[in-house]
Amino acid sequence: MTATIKLGKLAEFLGATLCGSKEKEITGLATLQEAGPAQLSFLANPQYRKYLVGSQAAAVLLKAVDADGFAGATLVVADPYLAYARVSHLFDPKPKAARGIHPSAVIADDAQVDLTVSIGAFTVIESSARISAGVTVGAHCFIGARCEIGVDGWLAPRVTLYHDVRIGERVVIQSGAVIGGEGFGFANYKGIWHKIAQVGGVLIGDDVEIGVNTAVDRGALADTVIGNGVKIDNQIQIAHNVQIGDHTAMAACVGISGSTRIGKHCMLAGGVGLVGHIDICDNVFITGMTMVTHSITEPGTYSSGTAMQTAAEWRKSAARLRKIDSMARRLRQVEKRVEDVTPSGNASSEG
Amino acid sequence: MTATIKLGKLAEFLGATLCGSKEKEITGLATLQEAGPAQLSFLANPQYRKYLVGSQAAAVLLKAVDADGFAGATLVVADPYLAYARVSHLFDPKPKAARGIHPSAVIADDAQVDLTVSIGAFTVIESSARISAGVTVGAHCFIGARCEIGVDGWLAPRVTLYHDVRIGERVVIQSGAVIGGEGFGFANYKGIWHKIAQVGGVLIGDDVEIGVNTAVDRGALADTVIGNGVKIDNQIQIAHNVQIGDHTAMAACVGISGSTRIGKHCMLAGGVGLVGHIDICDNVFITGMTMVTHSITEPGTYSSGTAMQTAAEWRKSAARLRKIDSMARRLRQVEKRVEDVTPSGNASSEG
Amino acid sequence: MTATIKLGKLAEFLGATLCGSKEKEITGLATLQEAGPAQLSFLANPQYRKYLVGSQAAAVLLKAVDADGFAGATLVVADPYLAYARVSHLFDPKPKAARGIHPSAVIADDAQVDLTVSIGAFTVIESSARISAGVTVGAHCFIGARCEIGVDGWLAPRVTLYHDVRIGERVVIQSGAVIGGEGFGFANYKGIWHKIAQVGGVLIGDDVEIGVNTAVDRGALADTVIGNGVKIDNQIQIAHNVQIGDHTAMAACVGISGSTRIGKHCMLAGGVGLVGHIDICDNVFITGMTMVTHSITEPGTYSSGTAMQTAAEWRKSAARLRKIDSMARRLRQVEKRVEDVTPSGNASSEG
Repeated sequence: MTATIKLGKLAEFLGATLCGSKEKEITGLATLQEAGPAQLSFLANPQYRKYLVGSQAAAVLLKAVDADGFAGATLVVADPYLAYARVSHLFDPKPKAARGIHPSAVIADDAQVDLTVSIGAFTVIESSARISAGVTVGAHCFIGARCEIGVDGWLAPRVTLYHDVRIGERVVIQSGAVIGGEGFGFANYKGIWHKIAQVGGVLIGDDVEIGVNTAVDRGALADTVIGNGVKIDNQIQIAHNVQIGDHTAMAACVGISGSTRIGKHCMLAGGVGLVGHIDICDNVFITGMTMVTHSITEPGTYSSGTAMQTAAEWRKSAARLRKIDSMARRLRQVEKRVEDVTPSGNASSEG
Repeated sequence: MTATIKLGKLAEFLGATLCGSKEKEITGLATLQEAGPAQLSFLANPQYRKYLVGSQAAAVLLKAVDADGFAGATLVVADPYLAYARVSHLFDPKPKAARGIHPSAVIADDAQVDLTVSIGAFTVIESSARISAGVTVGAHCFIGARCEIGVDGWLAPRVTLYHDVRIGERVVIQSGAVIGGEGFGFANYKGIWHKIAQVGGVLIGDDVEIGVNTAVDRGALADTVIGNGVKIDNQIQIAHNVQIGDHTAMAACVGISGSTRIGKHCMLAGGVGLVGHIDICDNVFITGMTMVTHSITEPGTYSSGTAMQTAAEWRKSAARLRKIDSMARRLRQVEKRVEDVTPSGNASSEG
Repeated sequence: MTATIKLGKLAEFLGATLCGSKEKEITGLATLQEAGPAQLSFLANPQYRKYLVGSQAAAVLLKAVDADGFAGATLVVADPYLAYARVSHLFDPKPKAARGIHPSAVIADDAQVDLTVSIGAFTVIESSARISAGVTVGAHCFIGARCEIGVDGWLAPRVTLYHDVRIGERVVIQSGAVIGGEGFGFANYKGIWHKIAQVGGVLIGDDVEIGVNTAVDRGALADTVIGNGVKIDNQIQIAHNVQIGDHTAMAACVGISGSTRIGKHCMLAGGVGLVGHIDICDNVFITGMTMVTHSITEPGTYSSGTAMQTAAEWRKSAARLRKIDSMARRLRQVEKRVEDVTPSGNASSEG
């Protein structure tokens, strides 16, 4: 369950410059503060430089500029955080699924399942689905009719794909995620809601990750579309016909309403909510819990919400805020009255 | 997987006035902009009228007043959006579950399961549950003891009903929804939380829809109650003993705290949160991400939250807002001082 | 499914002083308003004292001071709400799982499963997992490699534990919860996100409860840690390496970002969001939907957000709030101008 890898091998794997013994054995990863004498650590954020000198780590991934700060072995790389990301997989205790189809799985006769896949217990694969080479589908998954999963995909146990969900290569989907659910489409007629069949599908690019218990609804007419390299955290809601551009990332608890389009290389922090039918351009960063009610056409960072206060102060602020319109009118009035009685020259005295 | 239906049949089904060939074959639905020459489209929102003239659609559902705007075939109806909702089901590629009980399903001896149902693979139905005629229960569902599902219900794969959940007719429940979970009931005694058994159930009316990964907790003592025609989107939390009136709809990520009652024909937009033990009257609309901390007794539209700004502007606003109470006091003071030195007649010069 | 217990037995179980017949049979629990003549009720909150005199309850749990207010049988206890919590379990209609392993379960040869457990249908238990005495694992659960579940744990149907999740004694986990999912760890290199393996696990204390569809991610390096007695409601997101102190409770829809530490005996109301890498000290209460962007070092109650208004008023408030920085500057300016033209003595006339 835990790998042991020699430092020389790690240097080779990373193309790093090793200062220390090639034969030293590394058994795992840890932070500078917590690493023990057989663990590899890394220094990426300058804030943590103070922990370098005292670290018990067997070796540290770091930049050339920091190499002198550590007495032990060092692996000098251009980007220590990326190097850490790369070696992390070598020490991952995640069990590797055995190749093959668990005998309890229920697979439609006309499903196309590559011989190199791993299909877990009690998984159901429906008619005309296509599972490509190297794919792992965990236990308790449901793969609907005509779904496609590209090569080297990894589905945790208990992932549900409704019918007609097409997924690119190397896509990772965590437990509880539901892709292709029927979006919230209803026509209101005299106060009664009439369901609209959601006849579109979902199209997911390559190298996408979808988090725990996240929902991506199928399209109402056309497909819901998730671009390449998109990273979607846990507990997220993506409504029908949303389109997400390549390499956009969003943290947990985000909610995106129907038909909204998000550009490439955007970042949505946790708990952000977007109304439907708006466009967010490329390279937008939205801070946590922001309420986005209109399109964003300029790259940049956007926010909403109020700062936390003690409840006693907050109650006063909230009460005053309810009256801010009247405050603004009163301010205008008092300005006018002052204007009337003071020489206008004073107006510029402020700045 | 795709239906082909003649235009004449569609006109008949809808009671629409057809202007065009009865024999034209329709294979699907699309928006005015995206429809191809074998697809039906619709014009419901006047905003999209501009796309009518150039649409490639085989035919368009529209109102009489718009019929002249399209050169191709038209189906004139009173309510094009409702008509679209109705025909959408004819073109739905969703696989129809085969009647019967999958041999892998585990069904209690004393469960009453109608002969016309469809029960998916690996589904568990517990003691004394009752599944009515025409019900579809997808794979991996769990139907607890004494649950009842009314006629023509449709449960997606992987829906969990704890024991004593009673569901009306034609109810749709999407994947990952959990109905009847044990609500958050604890008595705090000297800093330690003691669990309170949740002995109530859940009662769900007819024609309800419940979205992906939504949770509806069972009652602590009496039942949690969802009225007829209620539509509940994805990722929603409905706590114990909530009551929701008929034909109310709520979009994704809403959270409703315990014992809160919501009236009929309300609409809650995405991300709205309600505290517990409050009453919302009928015909209330609450905009997205609003924080509802007290009862609402008048129909109307309600909101909270702040508008999005650039992060730089927002930081200034948020800092100022923290001091709004002091601003209000300073404004009052300056008003008084101005009052003291200017003739009172000026006070009315503003407006 | 419904218990019948004599009042004398209940008094004995609770150590309560019974005023009334020991032989009276109680068949369930209800509120003062709804209780029928065979049901037990309780008076804990003084607000409900008004319902006492007219209650049809067979008997009421109450404090000595309230005993005179009810003509029927009373069970006098020091803490009626705690007493209600304790007796609630006696009347819980929740089916008790039969001891044994369902024949459909798939259990690794080297898993250690105590003989006194109950394992539901279609549950998967992976290599080297350890299930202690008295544990119930519902149907459709997945227990990953090397997981440990302490004595008397109760997992609802459809709970997923990834590998290396260690759970203390008497822990309750509701349906749809996912423990040990791979947190949101990516290194960005030239605009592309590179996945970081999440090599830590999850460590959960004793007497913890985890709600429906809640996600607790595994640690990136070290473990994510949930203390003893922590109560976590539905639809919650707990990111990698979060640490939660003993006896803290959080209501539904809370989101906690990575590496944030929360103290003991805290309470987070519904929809609260916390950024990552902050510390919340012991005994902090955070009101609903608050956005927590920095550490809290003093016990107390904290809030953010704006009060709900009608949408018409809210639009005005929101527009004004966007300009609050300019308002503050204008206020300062008018104060200065007034200062310039009025005797400074006036300044103290206000307060």
